[in-house]
Amino acid sequence: MENIIVFSIAPVSAIIALAFAYGFYRSVLKLSEGNEKMVEIAEAVRKGARAYIKQQYKIVVIFFFFAALFLVFLSFVLKVQSLWTPFAFLTGGFFSGLAGFIGMTTATLASARTTNQARDSLDKALKVAFRSGAVMGLIVVGLALLDISLWFIVLHIWLKNSLVITTITMLSFGMGASLQALFARVGGGIYTKAADVGADLVGKVEAGIPEDDPRNPATIADNVGDNVGDVAGMGADLYESYTGAILSSAALGAAAYVLLNPSLAYNAVVLPMVIAGIGILASILGIYLVKTREGATQKQLLSSLGVGINVSSLIIIIGSFVSVKLLLPQNLGIFGSIVVGLVVGVIVGKSVEYYTSASYKPTLEVAEKAKTGEATVIIAGLSSGMISTAIPVITIACGIIGAFAFAGGFKNAIMGLYGIGVAAVGMLSTLGITLATDAYGPIADNAGGNAEMAGLDKVVRERTDALDSLGNTTAATGKGFAIGSAALTALALLAAYIEEVKAGMRHIINKGETVVVGLGKVFSNVEQVDHLTIENFMELFKVNLMNPKVIVGVFIGSMMSFMFSGLTMKAVGKVASKMVDEVRRQFREIKGILEGKTTPDYASCVEISIRGAQREMILPSSLAIIMPILTGILLGVPGVMGLLVGALGSGFILAIFMANAGGSWDNAKKFIEQGNLGGKGSPAHKAGVVGDTVGDPLKDTSGPSLNILIKLMSMISIVVAGLIVGYSIL
Amino acid sequence: MENIIVFSIAPVSAIIALAFAYGFYRSVLKLSEGNEKMVEIAEAVRKGARAYIKQQYKIVVIFFFFAALFLVFLSFVLKVQSLWTPFAFLTGGFFSGLAGFIGMTTATLASARTTNQARDSLDKALKVAFRSGAVMGLIVVGLALLDISLWFIVLHIWLKNSLVITTITMLSFGMGASLQALFARVGGGIYTKAADVGADLVGKVEAGIPEDDPRNPATIADNVGDNVGDVAGMGADLYESYTGAILSSAALGAAAYVLLNPSLAYNAVVLPMVIAGIGILASILGIYLVKTREGATQKQLLSSLGVGINVSSLIIIIGSFVSVKLLLPQNLGIFGSIVVGLVVGVIVGKSVEYYTSASYKPTLEVAEKAKTGEATVIIAGLSSGMISTAIPVITIACGIIGAFAFAGGFKNAIMGLYGIGVAAVGMLSTLGITLATDAYGPIADNAGGNAEMAGLDKVVRERTDALDSLGNTTAATGKGFAIGSAALTALALLAAYIEEVKAGMRHIINKGETVVVGLGKVFSNVEQVDHLTIENFMELFKVNLMNPKVIVGVFIGSMMSFMFSGLTMKAVGKVASKMVDEVRRQFREIKGILEGKTTPDYASCVEISIRGAQREMILPSSLAIIMPILTGILLGVPGVMGLLVGALGSGFILAIFMANAGGSWDNAKKFIEQGNLGGKGSPAHKAGVVGDTVGDPLKDTSGPSLNILIKLMSMISIVVAGLIVGYSIL
Repeated sequence: MENIIVFSIAPVSAIIALAFAYGFYRSVLKLSEGNEKMVEIAEAVRKGARAYIKQQYKIVVIFFFFAALFLVFLSFVLKVQSLWTPFAFLTGGFFSGLAGFIGMTTATLASARTTNQARDSLDKALKVAFRSGAVMGLIVVGLALLDISLWFIVLHIWLKNSLVITTITMLSFGMGASLQALFARVGGGIYTKAADVGADLVGKVEAGIPEDDPRNPATIADNVGDNVGDVAGMGADLYESYTGAILSSAALGAAAYVLLNPSLAYNAVVLPMVIAGIGILASILGIYLVKTREGATQKQLLSSLGVGINVSSLIIIIGSFVSVKLLLPQNLGIFGSIVVGLVVGVIVGKSVEYYTSASYKPTLEVAEKAKTGEATVIIAGLSSGMISTAIPVITIACGIIGAFAFAGGFKNAIMGLYGIGVAAVGMLSTLGITLATDAYGPIADNAGGNAEMAGLDKVVRERTDALDSLGNTTAATGKGFAIGSAALTALALLAAYIEEVKAGMRHIINKGETVVVGLGKVFSNVEQVDHLTIENFMELFKVNLMNPKVIVGVFIGSMMSFMFSGLTMKAVGKVASKMVDEVRRQFREIKGILEGKTTPDYASCVEISIRGAQREMILPSSLAIIMPILTGILLGVPGVMGLLVGALGSGFILAIFMANAGGSWDNAKKFIEQGNLGGKGSPAHKAGVVGDTVGDPLKDTSGPSLNILIKLMSMISIVVAGLIVGYSIL
Repeated sequence: MENIIVFSIAPVSAIIALAFAYGFYRSVLKLSEGNEKMVEIAEAVRKGARAYIKQQYKIVVIFFFFAALFLVFLSFVLKVQSLWTPFAFLTGGFFSGLAGFIGMTTATLASARTTNQARDSLDKALKVAFRSGAVMGLIVVGLALLDISLWFIVLHIWLKNSLVITTITMLSFGMGASLQALFARVGGGIYTKAADVGADLVGKVEAGIPEDDPRNPATIADNVGDNVGDVAGMGADLYESYTGAILSSAALGAAAYVLLNPSLAYNAVVLPMVIAGIGILASILGIYLVKTREGATQKQLLSSLGVGINVSSLIIIIGSFVSVKLLLPQNLGIFGSIVVGLVVGVIVGKSVEYYTSASYKPTLEVAEKAKTGEATVIIAGLSSGMISTAIPVITIACGIIGAFAFAGGFKNAIMGLYGIGVAAVGMLSTLGITLATDAYGPIADNAGGNAEMAGLDKVVRERTDALDSLGNTTAATGKGFAIGSAALTALALLAAYIEEVKAGMRHIINKGETVVVGLGKVFSNVEQVDHLTIENFMELFKVNLMNPKVIVGVFIGSMMSFMFSGLTMKAVGKVASKMVDEVRRQFREIKGILEGKTTPDYASCVEISIRGAQREMILPSSLAIIMPILTGILLGVPGVMGLLVGALGSGFILAIFMANAGGSWDNAKKFIEQGNLGGKGSPAHKAGVVGDTVGDPLKDTSGPSLNILIKLMSMISIVVAGLIVGYSIL
């Protein structure tokens, strides 16, 4: 019996999330933006951010247009996939873009208001910033779960498609979200770091003026960057992880139970959506628990944030237990998988904190090396970043085996893979609140910029700085969950790929053709395909480690991670150079800027970042789209699976390395700026600034983009699986 | 019929190589070392190098002692592998160490002689340096092929062991060579770069004195470093690649033909040895073709080196064709595999040159970024290095598919894997001459140091610098062959691992026990094992990409590459810091050093590098040894194969990235020093020096060590395969 009541937790929670988001948005808007100068600065940032997002969406629309055309061709002409695919793809992209847009708009509206509240007190400022971050968090989970629920209602409940067909069709919705996320992360990442690096190189290093100084022409561009990169980019990124985790585990749930116990297949499919729904409610409760009172110390504020997150996590653990007990009582081990997921997230988060916070040895060692100059601080950061990959990788490795084993994978592989997917959903279920703690960082950062540019009292800047650093601990936890869930989701997507290949085989057989795989086994009716287990599949398609196509796929996948990182890093360098030239030109040609007598031309710097980011994001993005298709056509299913494993294996480790190296340099510099090792202006500080600048594109452009690259390549492989089965040449 | 005449090409060529090496050694020794000062400096370097190598061997002996004990335990107590294993292991280590020792001794004897000849003319200096390099090249190939031939004679021809047992026993000889190479590369690499970075940081950057200035206390340590790192380290490294390629393809040849066509199995086994033998003769001829005449221009000298290498390559192509035609006439495709190997080597070499030479765009762009400071030059080098991985990886990917296909792998997988192994042997067959062109670089470098310290005429230093840069082009080709062959060899070793697992199963069955694999298949007699094909094996052991043990293995393997690189890089930073402190102390405490009135205490700097390198190499080396054993015990055969593929996939790409980024920074700095972009002493030059310093440990410590890490982990997995089969817990 298909229990629609339980499922309805998902759409209802999604709508509640959107309602609360709207409420928080209204409550933020009610506050004043402060004096004229503050409004003017905020307006300039808003204008820049809107101009950027408009440009980005123009390019995105072109890519989506051609991608959709291609999908229409596959669905309607070649008939190798479901007819719903192009539409599902488009809604995924649309909702993801909408979430990023709303989140970013809220952030740009919130920063001056945060500054203004910071004139009164630290905790008032925290409230605005955190509530605005919560808008982002709730919009992301709300829109994502709403879209998923609607498609499920349309495809399964209304049109009565089978669960297998429904869930694999819905995966193409994930491709839309991933593609949108890629542009948001890559474009936004290039924008923000080009502006940041450019502003720092001329402003701080050459002209010797402080960060966010209004005399620096790149300063507005820098503040716009925080919004388009750290807010809109991160929002689209996590929207993508969240949908990917839910959709892949739903597909695996259908595949696992349809063979094993069809009466429970529906329950297995809705379980991830139900957990996500409960997670939303838990997040809203958690957000309300983040209370502040007058004169709270920083430590108290931090513990208040922690209470919110911890209570949400506790609720999700209880909620998961009840859901599993209710929906899949025969396999309570699934609950074990979810707990494993949560524990992995916490450990990875703690390790991120350990390797990047100046309270611990690794970052202190990096800072120490600044005394012997730029070269040693760079070597120290690179090596510390590389060493820091060990704990997360071993933790996630244990998590994979654990989630797989708890769900019964060693008896039935696909069940174990379903367990891995559900573990990722569990990890991401409290995204509503963790994203709020992440997104409020850039808002506080911008608030500080506003305070500096508006020439407010020093204490205001100090408060916004405190807010900014306050979020670092919770942000580390957030990063841990993002990294952990990306690895688990990618693995679940890899398994879902197999289901898509089987779907492609069914489409081809339904056209009246036959499918020949591996060493000549012929498939000519759909039931043969239905009864393929994972092991049979791997054997027939020869997806083993001695097949050179698999090995070559692994090599190319690994290389893609490096190549993609290199291209995005290079893009930042290129655009930053242009920014440096422009700032130098303004200092040279516009008299009186450095004396504070003339306002610099902020808009031209914004324009450089916009144009540069748009141009430079095309090559890496196109590569990410083309490579899985090309590999599939040339090397078939074994090549694609090798590619995805290679990209995952290298990519997620490279991402941890870059995030931690960058974070460590950042905090080492801040540690020196607090007066240690010679303090501001010392040679050690100069070396620290170089380290931080090198780390910027690593931690905020290339690293985060890699997480999306891995999943986008999986999503594209999934969507074009039918094409590969029918038309691969090797 | 087993044709012993054809096989005897191998031992005879090996002996000829050793004879020629001795001849070249004598001819170098006959020359004068120059004036008293020059002899004194050369003696100091020799003393330092000897002191280092003595220390290194002390640690190596301890590791070898325990490793041999462990192997004795496996062979004689657990009885899971051949009784010859511990002895084969020890000879591999011994000969590898001997080759490094002789090569290094020759190099330290040659440098002052090269300087002295450079006082006369460029081409006389070239001859000494090149002949000394040739000693290294011929000793490496001679000792390696002699040891292989002797073991083959003992195990197969004398003791009449079967070809399968002979070849898999001989693989443990490779483990000895790999372990020795690891210590030589890691220890030597840490030593040389710690001394180099330390000397540069205080000497060039702080005190403003030129490279190799006798007033710099670390200058002797730096010159010792060239010998222990670049000569002895590289020698042991290539010794390891060379033996690994020959041994793995011999094992695959036996495995392939014993099932398919037993009468040709002997021929398939000796083919790689025969090709290696012909390669030695071709190399000796090539070395004689490197003629120089009075007043030759640099371009003529370069083309003279090229003629030597090209003629050797041509001979090896013809020789391979004849050998394949003679030994395996039914499968001439094997010859195609060899040609594919050679072509891959050339393309990869050209790409290394393109990305690291200042004659091309990538390095010029890196240099250009020096104008905007340290941070941008570092970002540019990192991104260019990452992008530079694309061409080599795609080339090697095509090479793998090509070599596999030519040998008939798509009909019979093991045959294709044999083709991949033989392709690697073809690539490395002219190692005698390519290593000569590689090893003469550090000799010329040391000769320059000697000229500088002895205060010789400026023209002498110019000539040694010309010699040094002369080798860059041929060295790039050499690197291409080293990278390409490492990837192919690692793949062949992975396939050989399967044969070792089968050997382990036989040992256990012979003890009267049974082996249970995968989902419960029981092996109780040896013939069942004999008839396992690669595909059956992969299926029974579930070595497919949906097995979480495989995925976890891939993750951990990838992580190992990063972790290992991080540890070695950190080691360089640590020891370099100590060096900086010591040099600063001497400048401060010993009066008159900077005025050139007092001789600094060179020996204390040498001592710091020695002690530091020895201490710091223990952790990464131990990890490399322990991880494959631990993974095997916890995750069984699928985990180990995942580990090896993961380490290979990430490791070899990471190695290319580090080598090319480092090379590019190095040449960008040199380009600036030639007077471009502001020239010496400009801010751009300062930024360039920082880039070069960051690149030093990347390109000369971590990068080259990775190649060995990958193969050592394969070798260890191979040797302990029997243990894993019998005692894995999962």
